Amino acid sequence: MSIVLGANQYGKAEVRLVRVLRHGGRHELCDLNVTVTLAGDLAATHLTGDNAQVLPTDSQKNTVYAFARSHGVDQIEDFALLLARHFVTAQPAISRARVRIEEYGWQRLGPHSFQRSGGEVRTATATCVDSEFDADSDADAGLVEVEAGLTGLVLLNSTDSEFTGYVKDPYTTLPETTDRILATAVDARWRYQDTGVDWAGSYAGARAALVDAFVGTYSLSLQQTLYAMGHRVLAERPEITEVRLSLPNRHHLLVDLAPFGLENPGEVFVATDRPYGLIEATISRAGDGVG
Amino acid sequence: MSIVLGANQYGKAEVRLVRVLRHGGRHELCDLNVTVTLAGDLAATHLTGDNAQVLPTDSQKNTVYAFARSHGVDQIEDFALLLARHFVTAQPAISRARVRIEEYGWQRLGPHSFQRSGGEVRTATATCVDSEFDADSDADAGLVEVEAGLTGLVLLNSTDSEFTGYVKDPYTTLPETTDRILATAVDARWRYQDTGVDWAGSYAGARAALVDAFVGTYSLSLQQTLYAMGHRVLAERPEITEVRLSLPNRHHLLVDLAPFGLENPGEVFVATDRPYGLIEATISRAGDGVG
Amino acid sequence: MSIVLGANQYGKAEVRLVRVLRHGGRHELCDLNVTVTLAGDLAATHLTGDNAQVLPTDSQKNTVYAFARSHGVDQIEDFALLLARHFVTAQPAISRARVRIEEYGWQRLGPHSFQRSGGEVRTATATCVDSEFDADSDADAGLVEVEAGLTGLVLLNSTDSEFTGYVKDPYTTLPETTDRILATAVDARWRYQDTGVDWAGSYAGARAALVDAFVGTYSLSLQQTLYAMGHRVLAERPEITEVRLSLPNRHHLLVDLAPFGLENPGEVFVATDRPYGLIEATISRAGDGVG
Amino acid sequence: MSIVLGANQYGKAEVRLVRVLRHGGRHELCDLNVTVTLAGDLAATHLTGDNAQVLPTDSQKNTVYAFARSHGVDQIEDFALLLARHFVTAQPAISRARVRIEEYGWQRLGPHSFQRSGGEVRTATATCVDSEFDADSDADAGLVEVEAGLTGLVLLNSTDSEFTGYVKDPYTTLPETTDRILATAVDARWRYQDTGVDWAGSYAGARAALVDAFVGTYSLSLQQTLYAMGHRVLAERPEITEVRLSLPNRHHLLVDLAPFGLENPGEVFVATDRPYGLIEATISRAGDGVG
Repeated sequence: MSIVLGANQYGKAEVRLVRVLRHGGRHELCDLNVTVTLAGDLAATHLTGDNAQVLPTDSQKNTVYAFARSHGVDQIEDFALLLARHFVTAQPAISRARVRIEEYGWQRLGPHSFQRSGGEVRTATATCVDSEFDADSDADAGLVEVEAGLTGLVLLNSTDSEFTGYVKDPYTTLPETTDRILATAVDARWRYQDTGVDWAGSYAGARAALVDAFVGTYSLSLQQTLYAMGHRVLAERPEITEVRLSLPNRHHLLVDLAPFGLENPGEVFVATDRPYGLIEATISRAGDGVG
Repeated sequence: MSIVLGANQYGKAEVRLVRVLRHGGRHELCDLNVTVTLAGDLAATHLTGDNAQVLPTDSQKNTVYAFARSHGVDQIEDFALLLARHFVTAQPAISRARVRIEEYGWQRLGPHSFQRSGGEVRTATATCVDSEFDADSDADAGLVEVEAGLTGLVLLNSTDSEFTGYVKDPYTTLPETTDRILATAVDARWRYQDTGVDWAGSYAGARAALVDAFVGTYSLSLQQTLYAMGHRVLAERPEITEVRLSLPNRHHLLVDLAPFGLENPGEVFVATDRPYGLIEATISRAGDGVG
Repeated sequence: MSIVLGANQYGKAEVRLVRVLRHGGRHELCDLNVTVTLAGDLAATHLTGDNAQVLPTDSQKNTVYAFARSHGVDQIEDFALLLARHFVTAQPAISRARVRIEEYGWQRLGPHSFQRSGGEVRTATATCVDSEFDADSDADAGLVEVEAGLTGLVLLNSTDSEFTGYVKDPYTTLPETTDRILATAVDARWRYQDTGVDWAGSYAGARAALVDAFVGTYSLSLQQTLYAMGHRVLAERPEITEVRLSLPNRHHLLVDLAPFGLENPGEVFVATDRPYGLIEATISRAGDGVG
Repeated sequence: MSIVLGANQYGKAEVRLVRVLRHGGRHELCDLNVTVTLAGDLAATHLTGDNAQVLPTDSQKNTVYAFARSHGVDQIEDFALLLARHFVTAQPAISRARVRIEEYGWQRLGPHSFQRSGGEVRTATATCVDSEFDADSDADAGLVEVEAGLTGLVLLNSTDSEFTGYVKDPYTTLPETTDRILATAVDARWRYQDTGVDWAGSYAGARAALVDAFVGTYSLSLQQTLYAMGHRVLAERPEITEVRLSLPNRHHLLVDLAPFGLENPGEVFVATDRPYGLIEATISRAGDGVG
């Protein structure tokens, strides 16, 4: 039985780019972490070390910086698309380019002074597939797909969360509760139907939908809250076709203060690190192919 | 257009389990991080908050600890299989259970004294799918798949690595080199054809194959080294059907000492953190369905 | 020459405490990480393993939770003082207790809904020394010292920063610049003269002084900015007697785009991780003993 | 009351240096993280931004790389001394230089192939104080002090550890135990009396003493184990004058399996992250000034 090379890809990860846009004395700041991943006709370098089809990852990095200067950076979805299209168009051997960007938020303190906003990160991923085999499509652009999302948005409801009525197997000791803390760090990705989108408005709207649904849902399970969050995004943002959510359940355990003669009516909790529940789901529009 | 729940799963992540096995005064130590992920008929909890089919993640955690006591832990592949089979068998609503285990190595210092071995981690993932729809199969066991692997194995060759003959596009400034440092942190996963395997022997053999191929390959690209590593595993371990490798290129840049009147003939390097190349591929046996 | 036990201390580190204060349906959230360190007559446990003077660190942890319930938590300086005083008072063997608290910020989203504010952390450390040897002092309270501060406040000026006129030794290749990005993650601690302080107001004032001085200083060196920040705190907050600042210089390097036919007039930068400059100083009032 | 600049220092942190020494085809690898800290007549840059006395941290970084080439790197204590002496000697304004080096271990796999050894890190710190005010001393060398140590050495005894006889206050719920797991991550620093030392031999000896004492001590408290470790170093290594140890107590809690009808005779434990006990002490030779 012979041994063969299967799916493969390569690229440059975590290119840290900060761009300052100067409108006279008033500056705009853009702080990105860009990861490029390329796939295509790359068997030779694996099998024989022939690099004739390999664009160095160092060149990919240079391209990120050069394009930031020559094209500017406004919405990260557009910058990811620009880069992904470039790699599949400019490199004959590359049939798929994926560019993932993380954007770190900064809050303005002055005309050219800023403060990092914290742990929340906006993300976008553009994937461009070479369409050489389809003569009717736009061969320069190829087929594209855009995902956006966020990570590190930590949310907590200090009440309006129950967990009851679950399976009791021989290993179940968890007491049912009708009032607990529900906390999570939202990791969300949503997929667009096409690329003609007001990215900034769509991001703000999707983010607000996630937050509003978390805040407004009386939760019977983190699954229910998750579904409500994804449903809200799709209900409010017609340009989004699918939402994937990964929500760790950051358990807050009520401390037993009885040994010290104290009641603890939902007041003092220990925030735990590990283990944690992890709830994941995709919510999509009916009729779409859901992965 | 209606909104629907798509693929979903849940479970308990990072259950930290340490087991001490006492043979008189001589102890064996087993240090694990166990993550359980369940999928199945879980729509109700998402859509209405009805938890009647939800086994709490706390119960999953308890099961890990109880099984460690009642069944013991020898090879992590077997412990992962045991747990995965339990969840699909014992929980009618659960049609797929995946148990991923990380094992941290300890080196013996005495009869009951140990030292952590370092950053390298052995991994195993067992997935058990309920086979209720197939009357001919073993309904108790279901369909199972076992993957093993390792992370955090940091390897470096201080020579016998070139990078030449690559694409020069307008953004290429990287000089060709016939002598560079090649360093990576191996992240490898390999898939087994069935479950009747000498797990310890197979792990040791696969790990040795990875290391030997890295050490013994005169590298023209990290892709070539990667392929050699995967190929070696498959060539030497017939029980393994596929290997996936993810290799960051931990760049070591030669420092320019000319401003200080010094040559630097491959002696002084700066080890960089970001950005880094990332090379990923699957190597498999021809005829297998490769994802 | 004999071997002796010198300075020693012990305690419980990183007690994670979340407290929910309920005013009807409107909740307040307090999220802390508490570290207790005790010193005193503890030679026996070191020398012979006699624990008769050792309060278990587990009991220290319990005390944190019990006091959060029985005394509440408002300002972290007061909670740290309460705990520190308790340990020196209640434990005859303990002559010095230090309680360090980190407070994580949460922004309100609703009556009982919150979002983590990000990387910035408010800190306080109270140290209480048993005054048994000084009959004239308040024997119950002992001598106390309070420090407050913050970490993780990331600030950036995209201009108004120069670095010129420095020493040029044979290893200097850095070009002088009259326009660079200046960025840092502020780690500040300030010391109070006594404990009768409006902690919340003082914290807000000191934080604002740090930020305002960073924003408003035309910087000739990060040292100059650091001094301006510490000076501003002391100038505006008479209750503070000393400020210590530790400021990493988060270098942003202008990318050389000339190989691509592009100028780069202060627009595209690479944000680097390592190495980084680190500038540290104490600013205090004249006449104070400064460590 | 005027505001004054107190103690201050600056330098370059985390200069990552990898050096390859080639003996024909057989290579030696040295992997370091170097941090330089300088103090002296630096008031001007703080007060007015006059940098005439400031050696850029970039030049400090260059010096590390250039010295690695021109002087080589053998023992990190010597390399730290070399650098520290250089900065106080070559820079008139600098009266104290401190160079801290972390060395990452690599295990040989072949003539020029290596594997990272894991989490354990060898450390050394050399401090050189300018002796210009003392005409009788060696003005070129100044006063020097060398510390060495290690971090990240994780040790565990699975028995021979008790914790009993401690204080029971109203917040004590911890049950006494005569058999527990004792685990820690050793952070040790030791100070030398002078600089004419076989650094490699002394390091190996001190490390072995720490490990042997941990393994061989029947522990009644982690304090007792700590003291035994420090005492052993001083007893066996006359060139070392003081040892400082910081030992987190990595708690392993016996899991209560009674709800599942199982006993748990010291077999199944949960390894916890936070909170943790933290035990710190200095052990020194009588007659020395101990900080």
